[in-house]
Amino acid sequence: MQGTQVAIIGAGPAGLLLGALLHKAGIANLILEQRSSDYVLSRIRAGILEQTTVALLEEAGVAERLHREGLVHSGIYLSFDGARQHIDLQKLTGGRAVTVYGQTEMTRDLMEARAAAGMTTLYEAEQVALHDITTDKPRVSYLRNGRREELRCDFIAGCDGFHGVSRQSIPAELLKTFERVYPFGWLGVLADTPPVAHELVYAHHPRGFALCSMRSKTRSRCYVQCSLSDSVEQWSDARFWDELRSRLDPATAAALQPAAAIEKSIAPLRSFVAEPMRHGRLFLAGDAAHIVPPTGAKGLNLAASDVRYLSRALIEHYRERSDAGLDQYSEKALRRVWRAERFSWTMTRLLHSFPEQGGFEQRLQRAELDYLFSSTAAQTSLAENYVGLALED
Amino acid sequence: MQGTQVAIIGAGPAGLLLGALLHKAGIANLILEQRSSDYVLSRIRAGILEQTTVALLEEAGVAERLHREGLVHSGIYLSFDGARQHIDLQKLTGGRAVTVYGQTEMTRDLMEARAAAGMTTLYEAEQVALHDITTDKPRVSYLRNGRREELRCDFIAGCDGFHGVSRQSIPAELLKTFERVYPFGWLGVLADTPPVAHELVYAHHPRGFALCSMRSKTRSRCYVQCSLSDSVEQWSDARFWDELRSRLDPATAAALQPAAAIEKSIAPLRSFVAEPMRHGRLFLAGDAAHIVPPTGAKGLNLAASDVRYLSRALIEHYRERSDAGLDQYSEKALRRVWRAERFSWTMTRLLHSFPEQGGFEQRLQRAELDYLFSSTAAQTSLAENYVGLALED
Repeated sequence: MQGTQVAIIGAGPAGLLLGALLHKAGIANLILEQRSSDYVLSRIRAGILEQTTVALLEEAGVAERLHREGLVHSGIYLSFDGARQHIDLQKLTGGRAVTVYGQTEMTRDLMEARAAAGMTTLYEAEQVALHDITTDKPRVSYLRNGRREELRCDFIAGCDGFHGVSRQSIPAELLKTFERVYPFGWLGVLADTPPVAHELVYAHHPRGFALCSMRSKTRSRCYVQCSLSDSVEQWSDARFWDELRSRLDPATAAALQPAAAIEKSIAPLRSFVAEPMRHGRLFLAGDAAHIVPPTGAKGLNLAASDVRYLSRALIEHYRERSDAGLDQYSEKALRRVWRAERFSWTMTRLLHSFPEQGGFEQRLQRAELDYLFSSTAAQTSLAENYVGLALED
Repeated sequence: MQGTQVAIIGAGPAGLLLGALLHKAGIANLILEQRSSDYVLSRIRAGILEQTTVALLEEAGVAERLHREGLVHSGIYLSFDGARQHIDLQKLTGGRAVTVYGQTEMTRDLMEARAAAGMTTLYEAEQVALHDITTDKPRVSYLRNGRREELRCDFIAGCDGFHGVSRQSIPAELLKTFERVYPFGWLGVLADTPPVAHELVYAHHPRGFALCSMRSKTRSRCYVQCSLSDSVEQWSDARFWDELRSRLDPATAAALQPAAAIEKSIAPLRSFVAEPMRHGRLFLAGDAAHIVPPTGAKGLNLAASDVRYLSRALIEHYRERSDAGLDQYSEKALRRVWRAERFSWTMTRLLHSFPEQGGFEQRLQRAELDYLFSSTAAQTSLAENYVGLALED
């Protein structure tokens, strides 16, 4: 039977980043991932990084390409009712900004650094099961290359996402879950065409939400709110660009240059939180414990702040023989989780069209946008959440 | 047949204030009120005045007693989860404040000034009907002392509240209405006992909303959220004070000194807007056109800002022979109305317990309060709305 100090379940950005930070601190760790590395890298996700996320990647020693290729954005645009309002994040937050860098790229950087450092990631480890979590000798078993294997460890980090085994290993009666499913999805298109603006444009229109995002100065990632019953086949490239254009203010619409889709997919929107984020020696981080709708781009950043809290707590355990950080982890992480859930829900509500909305609610939504366009205080509140609320020590 | 320049329907604060401002400008006006003056004065209403409302009362020459007896408040308290957070309105808004002065007192001042100036208010004018609104010779008919009378005028100001005849005189097909009724009411108690704090305390508790307000340094006005099916008889004084105490943080609760109720009543909460606020020569102002739930105390202030816009537009008409102000009135007033509707709804949602809320929404509400307690930007947004958003010229 193999052994390690921290067994990390899941080789997505949360697991890889945790592994890198622990390795820097001299803590042995091993990652188990049920998929192949190619599959992990094929998942297209958001890519707006808060400064604290960037700082954590620097700390992990994997920010070199990010600083070379990432686009630093000091603002965003809101588009509504034919007008476009710039939200100057930097000015409103005393100098903070976000960095546009695809989650896929960040994952690739972390994978390569891990391989270069000779750290073990076991891909295609199937039928992962967690054992003896509430003892001080937890184990992880899995099937790999046709063989059943077992791994001894001090701690297990559950970084295996919403559908992973980690959260499911906590007895249901000990877990409180909170959930909201939204009655629409996001149809996303990736295309080699210049972005409509140098920063992201978030749009609300009676026809629904739209977002013009980017991966680089020549590659756009755009979204329109769609019905959950829609399929990608119903959305030709032409229909997508027409629909997107119809939801934008004239200035933004005029800059839109349709191009062939490289990738096209529909994603549902969900808010989800599981409490607590710890059970015995199992600690959940990222999507394993919580999901936010993508409006406001908090998902990846929340995973990073979980990893920051968890890595520091584990380092404290090994270096200072203190479990204070581990004992506080769930409560501390959840405080930030709920603030991000609040913001993501607020942005989702502000910018989407809700089929069940009556006339009064529609007008309130217009009033909300009108107020946001006119109030520095409201813009400051949006900005401080968008760049990321402060982390606790 | 009598004649005047502006016939004002309703002798509540909106109608009386409009009459005073028009009179100052030398514009003849006459008020018709279906109730008696004693009845009007017996209505207990809110009493938090924005600075722009105070300025308008000064302009009307009826602010002398208000300045002597009104309490200037530079902040409010929020009470939640055992803690009390001070919102420093003055500091957050660059020096603005609110004045606590009962609507009843303000109405009395306006009535007395009107009587002293020899201006006509016809009380107990029943069966009021508006005629020829869309011509330039509108008329108002009414029954008084058993006689059917008629009044010629240039304009009609509909200041007769939600249930009044003015809004109902606009053809239904020309009026868009927006409404939300809330699934709870406010049980209010007036009592001669010192306020729990020198400023208002707004509380949220899982048991529901509570508010400790005041009329003076020796008279309190307190509220608890209650069921709409409750009756005043079910609420003894003792039950009321116990319930109120249970919803407050310990420091506030300790300061509560129960006393016999002078008045006790249950009011429903409603959001309502009718658009447009003009039909021909009829102009709606105040509750005749819109209702806000009382959370945030916007109702009276919104009536005052309507009256400010309308009085200026009428003065412009007579002095400068320009109808520009009258033509813009509805749009301009509604912009401010919707901002106040937004704020009142936000405060209502933030502070009440909604029976239909699921677990996720309850946690979001907690997260909203937690964020508000921690963010200067969020507090600034609340403060700028509470003291009143800027008026247009």
